Amino acid sequence: MSRTTDTSHVWGGRFSEPTDAFVQRFTASVGFDQRLAVQDISGSLAHADMLRHVGVLTAAEHRQIVDGMRQVQEEIDRGEFNWSTALEDVHMNIEARLTELIGSTGKKLHTGRSRNDQVATDIRLFLRDAIDTISTALTHLQRGAVSLAEAHADTVMPGFTHLQTAQPVTFGHHVLAWNEMLERDHGRLMDCRARLNQCPLGAAALAGTPYPIDREHTAQALGFDAPTANSLDSVSDRDFAIEFCSFAALLMTHLSRISEELVLWTSAQFDFVRLPDRFCTGSSIMPQKKNPDVPELVRGKVGRVNGNLVALLTLMKSQPLAYNKDNQEDKEPLFDTVDTVIDSLRAFGDMLPAVEPCVDNLREAARRGFSTATDLADYLVRKGMPFRDAHEVVGNAVAHGIDEGLDLAEMDLATLQSFSTTIEQDVYGMLTLEGSVAARNHIGGTAPEQVRAAIDRARALLEQRDTRA
Amino acid sequence: MSRTTDTSHVWGGRFSEPTDAFVQRFTASVGFDQRLAVQDISGSLAHADMLRHVGVLTAAEHRQIVDGMRQVQEEIDRGEFNWSTALEDVHMNIEARLTELIGSTGKKLHTGRSRNDQVATDIRLFLRDAIDTISTALTHLQRGAVSLAEAHADTVMPGFTHLQTAQPVTFGHHVLAWNEMLERDHGRLMDCRARLNQCPLGAAALAGTPYPIDREHTAQALGFDAPTANSLDSVSDRDFAIEFCSFAALLMTHLSRISEELVLWTSAQFDFVRLPDRFCTGSSIMPQKKNPDVPELVRGKVGRVNGNLVALLTLMKSQPLAYNKDNQEDKEPLFDTVDTVIDSLRAFGDMLPAVEPCVDNLREAARRGFSTATDLADYLVRKGMPFRDAHEVVGNAVAHGIDEGLDLAEMDLATLQSFSTTIEQDVYGMLTLEGSVAARNHIGGTAPEQVRAAIDRARALLEQRDTRA
Amino acid sequence: MSRTTDTSHVWGGRFSEPTDAFVQRFTASVGFDQRLAVQDISGSLAHADMLRHVGVLTAAEHRQIVDGMRQVQEEIDRGEFNWSTALEDVHMNIEARLTELIGSTGKKLHTGRSRNDQVATDIRLFLRDAIDTISTALTHLQRGAVSLAEAHADTVMPGFTHLQTAQPVTFGHHVLAWNEMLERDHGRLMDCRARLNQCPLGAAALAGTPYPIDREHTAQALGFDAPTANSLDSVSDRDFAIEFCSFAALLMTHLSRISEELVLWTSAQFDFVRLPDRFCTGSSIMPQKKNPDVPELVRGKVGRVNGNLVALLTLMKSQPLAYNKDNQEDKEPLFDTVDTVIDSLRAFGDMLPAVEPCVDNLREAARRGFSTATDLADYLVRKGMPFRDAHEVVGNAVAHGIDEGLDLAEMDLATLQSFSTTIEQDVYGMLTLEGSVAARNHIGGTAPEQVRAAIDRARALLEQRDTRA
Amino acid sequence: MSRTTDTSHVWGGRFSEPTDAFVQRFTASVGFDQRLAVQDISGSLAHADMLRHVGVLTAAEHRQIVDGMRQVQEEIDRGEFNWSTALEDVHMNIEARLTELIGSTGKKLHTGRSRNDQVATDIRLFLRDAIDTISTALTHLQRGAVSLAEAHADTVMPGFTHLQTAQPVTFGHHVLAWNEMLERDHGRLMDCRARLNQCPLGAAALAGTPYPIDREHTAQALGFDAPTANSLDSVSDRDFAIEFCSFAALLMTHLSRISEELVLWTSAQFDFVRLPDRFCTGSSIMPQKKNPDVPELVRGKVGRVNGNLVALLTLMKSQPLAYNKDNQEDKEPLFDTVDTVIDSLRAFGDMLPAVEPCVDNLREAARRGFSTATDLADYLVRKGMPFRDAHEVVGNAVAHGIDEGLDLAEMDLATLQSFSTTIEQDVYGMLTLEGSVAARNHIGGTAPEQVRAAIDRARALLEQRDTRA
Repeated sequence: MSRTTDTSHVWGGRFSEPTDAFVQRFTASVGFDQRLAVQDISGSLAHADMLRHVGVLTAAEHRQIVDGMRQVQEEIDRGEFNWSTALEDVHMNIEARLTELIGSTGKKLHTGRSRNDQVATDIRLFLRDAIDTISTALTHLQRGAVSLAEAHADTVMPGFTHLQTAQPVTFGHHVLAWNEMLERDHGRLMDCRARLNQCPLGAAALAGTPYPIDREHTAQALGFDAPTANSLDSVSDRDFAIEFCSFAALLMTHLSRISEELVLWTSAQFDFVRLPDRFCTGSSIMPQKKNPDVPELVRGKVGRVNGNLVALLTLMKSQPLAYNKDNQEDKEPLFDTVDTVIDSLRAFGDMLPAVEPCVDNLREAARRGFSTATDLADYLVRKGMPFRDAHEVVGNAVAHGIDEGLDLAEMDLATLQSFSTTIEQDVYGMLTLEGSVAARNHIGGTAPEQVRAAIDRARALLEQRDTRA
Repeated sequence: MSRTTDTSHVWGGRFSEPTDAFVQRFTASVGFDQRLAVQDISGSLAHADMLRHVGVLTAAEHRQIVDGMRQVQEEIDRGEFNWSTALEDVHMNIEARLTELIGSTGKKLHTGRSRNDQVATDIRLFLRDAIDTISTALTHLQRGAVSLAEAHADTVMPGFTHLQTAQPVTFGHHVLAWNEMLERDHGRLMDCRARLNQCPLGAAALAGTPYPIDREHTAQALGFDAPTANSLDSVSDRDFAIEFCSFAALLMTHLSRISEELVLWTSAQFDFVRLPDRFCTGSSIMPQKKNPDVPELVRGKVGRVNGNLVALLTLMKSQPLAYNKDNQEDKEPLFDTVDTVIDSLRAFGDMLPAVEPCVDNLREAARRGFSTATDLADYLVRKGMPFRDAHEVVGNAVAHGIDEGLDLAEMDLATLQSFSTTIEQDVYGMLTLEGSVAARNHIGGTAPEQVRAAIDRARALLEQRDTRA
Repeated sequence: MSRTTDTSHVWGGRFSEPTDAFVQRFTASVGFDQRLAVQDISGSLAHADMLRHVGVLTAAEHRQIVDGMRQVQEEIDRGEFNWSTALEDVHMNIEARLTELIGSTGKKLHTGRSRNDQVATDIRLFLRDAIDTISTALTHLQRGAVSLAEAHADTVMPGFTHLQTAQPVTFGHHVLAWNEMLERDHGRLMDCRARLNQCPLGAAALAGTPYPIDREHTAQALGFDAPTANSLDSVSDRDFAIEFCSFAALLMTHLSRISEELVLWTSAQFDFVRLPDRFCTGSSIMPQKKNPDVPELVRGKVGRVNGNLVALLTLMKSQPLAYNKDNQEDKEPLFDTVDTVIDSLRAFGDMLPAVEPCVDNLREAARRGFSTATDLADYLVRKGMPFRDAHEVVGNAVAHGIDEGLDLAEMDLATLQSFSTTIEQDVYGMLTLEGSVAARNHIGGTAPEQVRAAIDRARALLEQRDTRA
Repeated sequence: MSRTTDTSHVWGGRFSEPTDAFVQRFTASVGFDQRLAVQDISGSLAHADMLRHVGVLTAAEHRQIVDGMRQVQEEIDRGEFNWSTALEDVHMNIEARLTELIGSTGKKLHTGRSRNDQVATDIRLFLRDAIDTISTALTHLQRGAVSLAEAHADTVMPGFTHLQTAQPVTFGHHVLAWNEMLERDHGRLMDCRARLNQCPLGAAALAGTPYPIDREHTAQALGFDAPTANSLDSVSDRDFAIEFCSFAALLMTHLSRISEELVLWTSAQFDFVRLPDRFCTGSSIMPQKKNPDVPELVRGKVGRVNGNLVALLTLMKSQPLAYNKDNQEDKEPLFDTVDTVIDSLRAFGDMLPAVEPCVDNLREAARRGFSTATDLADYLVRKGMPFRDAHEVVGNAVAHGIDEGLDLAEMDLATLQSFSTTIEQDVYGMLTLEGSVAARNHIGGTAPEQVRAAIDRARALLEQRDTRA
């Protein structure tokens, strides 16, 4: 097939008129699926090797194909490959060029396969690579989080519920909460990888092929755990893309939550942390501005990933078996999600270790806001008062404090005793920030001792991960 | 500012270290917002003209800016403009180049505005243009639909509910149902246009500007109906993008429904219509295939548009006033939606008039399936039987017909009378397809007479639309 | 038909075995669509009146139906109506009871209609009522917003971009930004109402009916602007539900943004406003807590409304004409959206006028953070410096201020002149908060004079709305 | 606390005015979270047992609580429990009733916990139960699918791509493709279960508790694998709900695809399968209709589940730590998803084994449509022709067949040889349906032998699953 006769289609025999030029552009995918070229060539080489192995190709033909493909890959690498919309997609572009280079042996490569199983294989290979990259980036981010937590295992800050001061916690404990989210994300990512790692090659168009193919051979050559189990399902399944986007939507939701906190914390009102200048930008009109652009942008990017997930779910709704052209729409949302996740993890992986907590501001914020009110209630309970009654006593003390502008630790004993005679001098030990956090000394609690133990466990999990990879 | 010193930012004064190269790329928008160059220049020219009008710029300065901008536009048109990521976005790229060309007068252009109101203006101008293009394409598609309906105002086909044969309708009536959906879409599009057509220029960063600007002047110059009413809202509002995507999601949903029908109808099992080859493609492996690619692909594209809508809604959720960097994420979903809608309408606009109904197959399908059973029930009602009783009589006749392989019109009178003695010879007139459709002779009914009247009304609405445009 | 024989279906003639009990429950809609009983009866009465008008029912029959329906309505009102799952839906339940009450005349009511056009009519009537309720609630909320804005037209606060202090604005101006969002919402609501206000009755099952119906008569009786134009479209169209949910998603997005600000502003760190206790709740464990529950909950409720929009878009994707059982799934998302919007508007309508700005805190926050830096730049521009150069001068001054802990207005003249000799004594007038806001004195600007003018215009629009309603 | 004084809140001490009645209703969750009563009581009993174990409660107090809770449970079971909106939620209702019954010991139960960790525990327990129910229902459905496949391992039908006849497959092979989708769903469900099965009790409000609690004890008592690792994360995490809804969205997408096929196949045009009457309903107006309501309705229900997923993702976007009132909105989407999935699986589990393929129609449909065209191409390849050339030869033969109304197997040898002289008499063996399917004899292929092997493997996986449960 000549590269210049773009109107001769690979499926031309049955048709009586040329495709309208706009329709050709509208239905072509090569504009975006050329990104799969590396995977497409890998898949073709494994397929060719299998065809040789079972005797469909001779050793010489196989050698020709390998040599031709190497040249195609080089042309692509050098940016010299002439992608043609008339050839529709990455598969046809590469095969047509191969045939130009090596002649009619090139036409034998498609024996026993179809674009339907070919593209399914390409996307799985692509996504598997992307998952491995993401796993590394996520691990890097988690390592940074754990180190930041370690450096601030004792730094006291206010813990919030409803964005109201609730109880003192440590900064390290807060950062470890982020790590927990990311740890679950990594688990989901690995589950997704395990489930997608099956090879569709051999499903052919939809029913399998009469050639004596060896699907185990191809699967193994491409690093898959096994061939897929059903040919109709193999060419129509896009679960892996949806499962991956579900993982990504949850990961980005987590990053949006961390981002929200960083944006709040860098505001003049909170002033809890500083971000290095390189993660911020200024204003074209307001000279004093230092805007936390990176967390803001990452927070915004959860939108596109949620959108991509919805796009794929909508796409697959109600599709009958087996392959339908609708499925061409699977690639752009998937590519965009992969790119967004990788970039966002990189941005966060660089930024998080560089976050500088304003230790004094954090402490002062915790000191205000009656953050040890619960400790007072717990003190009363330990002295024998039912919790609900203690709660009411402390509520009255807080109301008094608001009126008088006094925190609990600032009230004298007589004042405290006016709310309950159970209160004694030893109460003041409970009302310090250090006393409060140290007292929460059980697995998962905010006591520095527990935070350090949690850091050790988190590190152990990350180490294990490395060993596995 | 030199084009080569990419590290000198327009907001550099306050900052102590250069932006990390990755962060620069990650946060830059010029890769996609350069698409707004035409609108950005239009907006700048209107702003400059206003600044001259109120005396902030001299006539000479204004002239310099106009000449410089013309040159910038030409460079862009010729593909010679050197877009720089270090300059972040389309606005800074154009302004920097202007200042290179005309010197320090270029720096005065930004007086009394900010990128915040500038980008809000650019997107509105862009979207307004897109809406006008879409309006034209939608009108073209509707014209084609109405013509197709006219050609087949008398062509009988089965009407379906639950995809089961229900009652005979005409093909023209069915196509007019599509047109009704599109007519509502056009109404929503025009409402969206009317609501967005207000000019944010003058809102500046968020609060307005102390310069003696004339917002009416700029608004009028850019074809807006009025300036926006509140500066904080002006720079944070993205309602127009969401409203447009809501319009688009519904339009694409309609196209997905039409597509589904075309895909069904071109199957071997239905064989109701033929699509010209140029809207179809073949298979790389199955030589006999002629696949309805265009409707399949359009059906799939509803996914990305629904996804874009979700992306924008997610983006704006919980954003405090006024501008946040998150909003940079508004453009790609919007651009993608505009492109998808325009392409899909074009594809449908070309394809629909070329759809060829298989008149005999349609008629035969209507003849089978007891499609006139309701007519028999209505016949009995007119003879005095309560509708619910008539329903039961016909149900029994249909059950008999299924057992015997006879349609109602194929049963002899004695058989029919065995279900109800009310039935007489005149019943056969009611049981023909023509009798059935002709009888539904009220506004909105499927009688050919009504279909023709509906076509006239639809055409009148489309004519009116032209006059307005 | 007896109420006790739940196994005898209204469409039983054709069927040979009873519906499985689970399937009956699974497919029945009466559990939720009984909410449409009022509308169903209104529609039936209008239909019966039309049937009498065209001679299908006698005056006596019509009278029987009217009397019977009155009794049905009373049974429903008194909670004595026996809703039966075996009768599937609200329509069959009511019709069966009517027939029980008045005998075989009840069976004539369904002449010339179908459940398909009946339910389409019911939902439109329901949604039209809901829209009117929402319009009132939204108007009430806007009135409250405008009054709050008026009370604080002069109250200075920091305006934010990127949640960083940007420029001083007035509290009234900020609240008017909220009103602008709501004003657009009201416009969309009215557009939705106008588009849905067409009557599907007469479309019957899908094709119209052979009875001599008068669709104009029914449409007018039910307050519709016109009958719908195409019977197939009439029974399959759910655009109005989707358009309404699009409106609602945007409205709730706006409320989520206002909520976010209220949550931020009631935090100890901001302390910008107080919410009355009745819109807050406490903690079961932390006695000091006063949580802004109402804005938090409303912020969360945007989720369900976005979800309902996606549910409906997914539902309609790819559905062929005309009615499919899938459409039964339209009601719950719509009802839930209506309820959520009405409740959220009510909660906000009560709460917003009760918000108490902490005027001193707002002012102090604006004073800090170099919020008048832009004013200094603008001052330099008015003295002849290009804006971009002025921006850099001020950037240097701000950097100095951060190092020294001084705001711009706190630097002495010599210090300021060290950054630019253009600065003179008159600069201090520009650097006050009042000077800054007063200077932004153009339409849409934050100057108190402009805020008051904007309030007048907003009120005029709200008045106009009343006149119309 | 008296049941009648609904205005006395459990957090009342700090507050100066009663909650507005509407706000009380608006913010209360007891209307829907009472569904968690069983789990709430289980959690409380485990907590009480742990408190006894560590000495916070005496054995006598513990006994009182156990007895009281038994009584509460009985009141709930008998429908006699008086749920109060003023008591906000299920937790407070139950605790208040317990205290009514057993006096002040009831107030001690809340020692060392908070509603924040309590509700997190309740939802996890609820969801774990739901997952186990779903696992059983899904397994039942898969068993039915495998049996249906087995019964039709040899039944030939047309395989489709683009809804165009592609190649013959067996009905059993097609049904096994459905089973593959469901098998992956089950894997995702189990992954979700494993990840959620950690116990948040002990996280208390957000920071842990100073009481000497034993979190391992509680976790074990409730069947959790371990306590959660971080208290802040424990009370704010809703990943499990999102991950479950992601599973559900994909499962329902699969059911929507199967439904689409069943709806198509029961149409008069396809007539591929019969559904028993009990899964269908009739029409109130068209006596001949038998509508496939169950698959239509299930197809529609994918909408609500996608919507619920979006609702939860939107809900969690940008939420700062730790608990916010927004999270109250997590329950209704989760409950609705659980109910929808269970009902849909039950409906399908009953229906699928009752599907009756119309064997003759399937065969006839496969015979038409040139479904063995690929076999002819493969025949030519085996005779030495490059695949692409063979594809063109067959395309020409198909074009001839369309013109002449002949399938390939109906052309005589001379005709076939006019397209390629390579064709010989042995070609006819390849062109039969049985020959075509039998030839695809490799793992995953449609050959009956492979289908039977796949059935054995599928059964083995299902057996394994049982053993595990």
